[in-house]
Amino acid sequence: MQRIGFRLKLKADMLDKYVLLHQNVWPEMLEALTKTGWHNYSLFIDRSDASLIGYFETPDLQKALNGMAKLEVNDRWQAFMASYFVALEGQRPDEGFLQLENIFYLE
Amino acid sequence: MQRIGFRLKLKADMLDKYVLLHQNVWPEMLEALTKTGWHNYSLFIDRSDASLIGYFETPDLQKALNGMAKLEVNDRWQAFMASYFVALEGQRPDEGFLQLENIFYLE
Repeated sequence: MQRIGFRLKLKADMLDKYVLLHQNVWPEMLEALTKTGWHNYSLFIDRSDASLIGYFETPDLQKALNGMAKLEVNDRWQAFMASYFVALEGQRPDEGFLQLENIFYLE
Repeated sequence: MQRIGFRLKLKADMLDKYVLLHQNVWPEMLEALTKTGWHNYSLFIDRSDASLIGYFETPDLQKALNGMAKLEVNDRWQAFMASYFVALEGQRPDEGFLQLENIFYLE
């Protein structure tokens, strides 16, 4: 299992709305994530600079990303989310995420 | 199980050394973490702003923190690490960590 950390920047004035939307992620989006290998997936925010930090576990990161990239429900979700992020430079949030460097692990 | 995210700021010029030290964390420190309920514990860094991001799972965060706070090996480790962090304002790294707000979870 690969343990993945990533980080994105949210627009500070849209942070509350982003949090609210994540209390009710579309069931078909959740199903798609599970089917494409996104497990034990948490999102965290740091309000001090509107950072969004994600953690998940997957057998194969590239397959998890490619699997979601092919799905229509993901197109719709990412288009819906795109306006909440800064500095994506035309990329979708799932393409623009900065993968964090894993430096330590304790089982 | 509680899923905990936290964030600290490292001194940019000491980041490489911090990473290196985490390839060989003292065995008695690892043992102490496990015994006090720190499980599935990953540390990540974001070199863009020298953020250190931690993720772990624990039955009880307060017990995990209090458990470590009592141990002499933790005193020694935190003293060793203190100079690598910025903006701790006199606190030890394990006291100064900013707990992130968990906004989403998918099993």
